[in-house]
Amino acid sequence: MNHLVFHLTGKPIEVLSLQPLHLPPLNEGEVRLRLLAAPINPADLNTIEGTYGVKLALPATPGIEGVGKVIESRDPLFAPGDHAIFLRRSSTWATHAQVAGSSLFKLPVALDPLQAAMLKVNPATAWRLLTGFQQPLPGEWIVQNASNSGVGRCVIQLAVTLGIRTMNLVRRAELADELLKLGADQVVTDDDEGLSLAKGILGTERARLAFNAVGGDSALRLMNLLDEGGIHITYGAMGRRPLTVPNGLLIFKDLQFRGLWVSRWIENAPPVEVASVYGFLATEVAAGRLVQPVDSTFALEDFTEALSRSIESGRDGKVLFDLRS
Amino acid sequence: MNHLVFHLTGKPIEVLSLQPLHLPPLNEGEVRLRLLAAPINPADLNTIEGTYGVKLALPATPGIEGVGKVIESRDPLFAPGDHAIFLRRSSTWATHAQVAGSSLFKLPVALDPLQAAMLKVNPATAWRLLTGFQQPLPGEWIVQNASNSGVGRCVIQLAVTLGIRTMNLVRRAELADELLKLGADQVVTDDDEGLSLAKGILGTERARLAFNAVGGDSALRLMNLLDEGGIHITYGAMGRRPLTVPNGLLIFKDLQFRGLWVSRWIENAPPVEVASVYGFLATEVAAGRLVQPVDSTFALEDFTEALSRSIESGRDGKVLFDLRS
Repeated sequence: MNHLVFHLTGKPIEVLSLQPLHLPPLNEGEVRLRLLAAPINPADLNTIEGTYGVKLALPATPGIEGVGKVIESRDPLFAPGDHAIFLRRSSTWATHAQVAGSSLFKLPVALDPLQAAMLKVNPATAWRLLTGFQQPLPGEWIVQNASNSGVGRCVIQLAVTLGIRTMNLVRRAELADELLKLGADQVVTDDDEGLSLAKGILGTERARLAFNAVGGDSALRLMNLLDEGGIHITYGAMGRRPLTVPNGLLIFKDLQFRGLWVSRWIENAPPVEVASVYGFLATEVAAGRLVQPVDSTFALEDFTEALSRSIESGRDGKVLFDLRS
Repeated sequence: MNHLVFHLTGKPIEVLSLQPLHLPPLNEGEVRLRLLAAPINPADLNTIEGTYGVKLALPATPGIEGVGKVIESRDPLFAPGDHAIFLRRSSTWATHAQVAGSSLFKLPVALDPLQAAMLKVNPATAWRLLTGFQQPLPGEWIVQNASNSGVGRCVIQLAVTLGIRTMNLVRRAELADELLKLGADQVVTDDDEGLSLAKGILGTERARLAFNAVGGDSALRLMNLLDEGGIHITYGAMGRRPLTVPNGLLIFKDLQFRGLWVSRWIENAPPVEVASVYGFLATEVAAGRLVQPVDSTFALEDFTEALSRSIESGRDGKVLFDLRS
């Protein structure tokens, strides 16, 4: 049993090391799992760097999501052989983990473990963006930036299922074809030209919701594509620039500015709601309607290569630890 | 019959002139009033300058609020001698006005016309700020900047009635005594020192709501005094600086950013709700629990002096046209 550990925050490649993992005997209600797969998320890297909104007590093992196979259970709802994802912070960059059964969500064993490992964060974030504030009617528009991101792609696919139309802003025009194939209604570049084009396409219509993971000028373009009373939701800050909101958009256009952090929703929503959302999302994945691209997979001991790859710009999907060996 | 008119947007003192007013015969449902009083609001000045969120067809007569005495009525709900305030844009900088009875709200004749003339905007804005988003429980805190403004003073007085505690940020420390006398729970300066002081006073508590009429750093200080999930409402932009929101406050602290424009509420709320709010506010004024300070009054023909006084910094209250002569 091994896990990746950091004793100090800093550059991930410098502060992480692979260490033997010692697990105590199982308590009542707990489950021990063999990890099958765990992705490298930006939030993991920021946590290791100490720049994330949540700080861990150190030493700590990263990994906010992943899927495992139950090998021992003192929770009557889980039996050896079950597959489950971790719904709470769970140190998934490890060969094994031990958690309360109540923090797990059981999945069909047939579900691809790489897709299952990425179910907690991006698909649920996209689902909450689309339905958790003011769900648009079929045919109505949402607008988003970072449309090629993990969440952006989930938004596009789930919007197809919901009949909601998507106006997608991307930094690079060459991404358009891929997103259109995924079900995007419209793709424009995230600049002034793209904004004009988007306005022309929308005609007299405007979006009910805007999803922002960039900030700065890009966030402002989204505001310009929102209808009166529209809701602008920030779920990420790739641009590391704050949101700047002209007063008139608040006072006269009545826009609302909100934030979304899916972990907060998991903590605060009724467990039956959380379970029903993940059940629905798992079904979408099983049906092939919700797919997240995988760039590459690595063994845990190759974490240095995995981390390097995860921050390369030419990636085409997520980097994961494949822990099935 | 006279009214102030501008044919072009620009500096109020340069573009306004007093002109004879010609009113057509009354239509069914209309009411003709002799104006009693009308204040000079910042929104009026911005409208004349062409910098307000709403543009008028020119030529136009300014005046977004005021009180009049009915002199002729073809609306069965109004009779000569009634006093009423104008709930919709109504060109009150005039000796007379003629509007649909449905756009008026009848007031007790005994109510001081100067106070009545200021009832539409500031008191209703303050009431919507306190109750229209997520009404704090008695004993909970709100925090505001521009606490000495017309709205700020109404917030303080209405919060006393509701049992809500107010943390008031002011630009000048010497305003504290006056606001405390009005019922403010706490007054601190709107700077870093005041912010620290406010945090110390609140202890582990934080505000449920923040009311912003300044923007920039001042708006950020309010965000720092809000509780998780708190609502930050912008109703003015005296500082003419946009709102800048750190992403973490949206994502991790779950703050909400909203705007308030009382005219939108008047247009969109059920008329019975609007009437009940103004009825309540009129009662508060009649009982002496809601008072707006009057700096000075002017005749309509002395509009040049009135406008000059209304932008002087040493004012102690509102400048109004007293039209009762």
